[in-house]
Amino acid sequence: MNKTPIKKIKSWYTRFQISKSPQMNLVWGFFLYTLIGFLLLALPIFHKGELSILDSLFTSTSAVSTTGLVTVNIFESYNFFGQFIIMVLIQIGGIGYMTLTTYYLLFTTKRITHWHQRVIGAEFTLPNTIKIRDFIRSVITFTIIMEVLGAIGFYFAFAQHGMTGLRAIWFSIFHSVSAFCTAGFALFDNSFESFSTDVWINTIISILAIAGSLGFIVITDLWYRLRGRTKRLSFTTKIISYGFLALLGIGTLFFYFGEPLTAESNSPWLLSFFQAMTAMTTVGFNTVPIGELGLPILLLVTFLMYIGASPSGTAGGLKITTLTALISVLKSRLFGQQQISFLGRKIPFERLYVATSTFILYTGIIFLFTFLLSFTESFPMDKILFEVASSLGTVGLSTGITGDLSVGGKLLIIILMFTGRVGVLTFGFALLARSSSEELSIKSDDLAV
Amino acid sequence: MNKTPIKKIKSWYTRFQISKSPQMNLVWGFFLYTLIGFLLLALPIFHKGELSILDSLFTSTSAVSTTGLVTVNIFESYNFFGQFIIMVLIQIGGIGYMTLTTYYLLFTTKRITHWHQRVIGAEFTLPNTIKIRDFIRSVITFTIIMEVLGAIGFYFAFAQHGMTGLRAIWFSIFHSVSAFCTAGFALFDNSFESFSTDVWINTIISILAIAGSLGFIVITDLWYRLRGRTKRLSFTTKIISYGFLALLGIGTLFFYFGEPLTAESNSPWLLSFFQAMTAMTTVGFNTVPIGELGLPILLLVTFLMYIGASPSGTAGGLKITTLTALISVLKSRLFGQQQISFLGRKIPFERLYVATSTFILYTGIIFLFTFLLSFTESFPMDKILFEVASSLGTVGLSTGITGDLSVGGKLLIIILMFTGRVGVLTFGFALLARSSSEELSIKSDDLAV
Ligand SMILES: [K+]
Ligand SMILES: [K+]
Repeated sequence: MNKTPIKKIKSWYTRFQISKSPQMNLVWGFFLYTLIGFLLLALPIFHKGELSILDSLFTSTSAVSTTGLVTVNIFESYNFFGQFIIMVLIQIGGIGYMTLTTYYLLFTTKRITHWHQRVIGAEFTLPNTIKIRDFIRSVITFTIIMEVLGAIGFYFAFAQHGMTGLRAIWFSIFHSVSAFCTAGFALFDNSFESFSTDVWINTIISILAIAGSLGFIVITDLWYRLRGRTKRLSFTTKIISYGFLALLGIGTLFFYFGEPLTAESNSPWLLSFFQAMTAMTTVGFNTVPIGELGLPILLLVTFLMYIGASPSGTAGGLKITTLTALISVLKSRLFGQQQISFLGRKIPFERLYVATSTFILYTGIIFLFTFLLSFTESFPMDKILFEVASSLGTVGLSTGITGDLSVGGKLLIIILMFTGRVGVLTFGFALLARSSSEELSIKSDDLAV
Repeated sequence: MNKTPIKKIKSWYTRFQISKSPQMNLVWGFFLYTLIGFLLLALPIFHKGELSILDSLFTSTSAVSTTGLVTVNIFESYNFFGQFIIMVLIQIGGIGYMTLTTYYLLFTTKRITHWHQRVIGAEFTLPNTIKIRDFIRSVITFTIIMEVLGAIGFYFAFAQHGMTGLRAIWFSIFHSVSAFCTAGFALFDNSFESFSTDVWINTIISILAIAGSLGFIVITDLWYRLRGRTKRLSFTTKIISYGFLALLGIGTLFFYFGEPLTAESNSPWLLSFFQAMTAMTTVGFNTVPIGELGLPILLLVTFLMYIGASPSGTAGGLKITTLTALISVLKSRLFGQQQISFLGRKIPFERLYVATSTFILYTGIIFLFTFLLSFTESFPMDKILFEVASSLGTVGLSTGITGDLSVGGKLLIIILMFTGRVGVLTFGFALLARSSSEELSIKSDDLAV
């Protein structure tokens, strides 16, 4: 008798899901988790002090979208249970709500429906060659292994700085999840600036963030290669790996030679690598005060945040694959080539079409929101642009203006974080397209739920 | 005997032209005029005071590219003959060197070669339906009529401000040419700020600049329509006219309601209209101090300069036609449509390809040069971005930093003005493509030179 209302809601929600396009389902899913997180975080029992309704909405959106921008200090504003909720929201957002529900289905029904495959495909833009089931299993296994190893690593690292007991255990788990999901939430009041020269901590964060952001496709692909299941890396994995290394190298070099702050550091190369890494993986931890960077390097970091990393991982941004497609279009035009290709491989028209649309929309949104924030805020343009690129790319780096934003400004950033997590094209399509709901409802009897 | 060396050079240059792609010919043509202008303007006999070599190169490039950015005050730095040279450079740049040479050919050889048609086509991106000869004749006739009428209008307008005699005649001619070619060079020390409430002067400039920038194709098309030669406006003319009016309206409204400076003016609507017009037509005269605009409206003006106007006129920028193509791509993607169309008309793949390539390259250059200038200059980002958009769009508006740029900064702006005039895609193609020179040299016996 007790289960009836829950069953009713479940049944209603299933019918609701079926009536919407896969894209709209993603939007509703993220919205639902954000809403639940907001309602929980708004409860005073999870607070250490006074917190506004808007700040709770901001924190919840930032956590589910794995952005990490904060208007309040997390450790000083939320008690342990509040912090725990934030970590859960990060975990849900990071792996993706649809991956989790599909995982649930995988181990309860032993099969995945056509419909769920479509939804997953919409989120992760999978090449068709990789099987969904292996993919999901790899995601979960990999996440658990990495986060456990990361937490152990953090525990010993923090111990060297005199942190012990329950506090050390909690900080280790929280930051491991936050790093692997590229969320960038920190319990320290200045992110990881106090650990800027600690090679051990820098390494742990970098490994977790690169693994999480490079993406499950790349990791799966590399894993298959290592176990000898395939003889060659897929084209996508190659592009992402090479592109990531190239941009990371360029970013580190520019930072080292272009940023005066490195001269004051004992570990200038580590500092340069870490800030380039944090922007590209969109983890968003920082070891130097971003607000003190010179304009050239602030623009460089903005560019790295704009590009981001892999389309399959937890990172935001335009993605390296999109950048590759754009470079290919331009290259073939400028060199007068008949075919649009990269590294000798022809790129399908559909991919170019998606890449171009994403580029137009992503760039347009960045300009539009910089324009809108220039009305609501009185900060200089570089800081506003940085905040916009950081929130849409779900990076979470900030020059320090987040807490001082106006109410309108905070709402605009909330919209950007949410849009960035869902994906600009997916979000736009969900809102505007006459959904293929007819087709879906016809096939809905395939559903195993 | 006297003519032999000139004939030799002519003959050599003709062979040189034939060996290059049409795009490379355009680049060389503009380069040659810039070089000649630079060498002339560097001569002290045309100066009123001391002028550096770099300033002469800057002025020459700015004139040939019809940008209008200046590092020195033109009236106080150059004597009458120097100013006259600048006006000639503006006229050459505005109508385009290839249009002039083709016009020359038209009235000497009575026919235009296939090769010249290709070059003209590359510069003005003509729809094939309009004939080259009519086009050229309209360009020249229209230019002369407009510039003469403009000069007469200016003469009476300046008279009302107490300007008389030779000075009034010279100022009228110079500013008429400068306005119609959307060059924006002024002989006043604060552009047209002293005339901000003069409806007559504002109207003359607006008519000249809109006619020049909307482009010869649009004018020819409207002319044909008026004389009843065609029954309907072409699709391109419609797109350009509607797009121009829409952006001009939006720009004026935002300026009026978003810029505090309008509150201080006696003619706030005129002021708002004129600044939106000057950015879109890329004429670059201003009636308010641009450096005093608030950030939101500075970004609005940056956006209007970025878009510009018609692909066939004297204006720079991304062009309204490119914007239309990009909107079409995005629209069809977001609404899940099979066909890429605008106002019910399918847009050819080739146009979409060109528009996309232009957008990627144009936006990339703006970001790259903003980044580079952030190293060489110490101005805030909004002013640097504005200067970059202004120079690449050949607009010539400035927040006032042009004269204070470093040597490196001036050289970067010179490159941008030149690239903007040639066109980003044309310039890129000229530099990178394995030119179709083989094909050209085979057909070179068609040439009438
Ligand atoms: K993040
Ligand atoms: K101009």
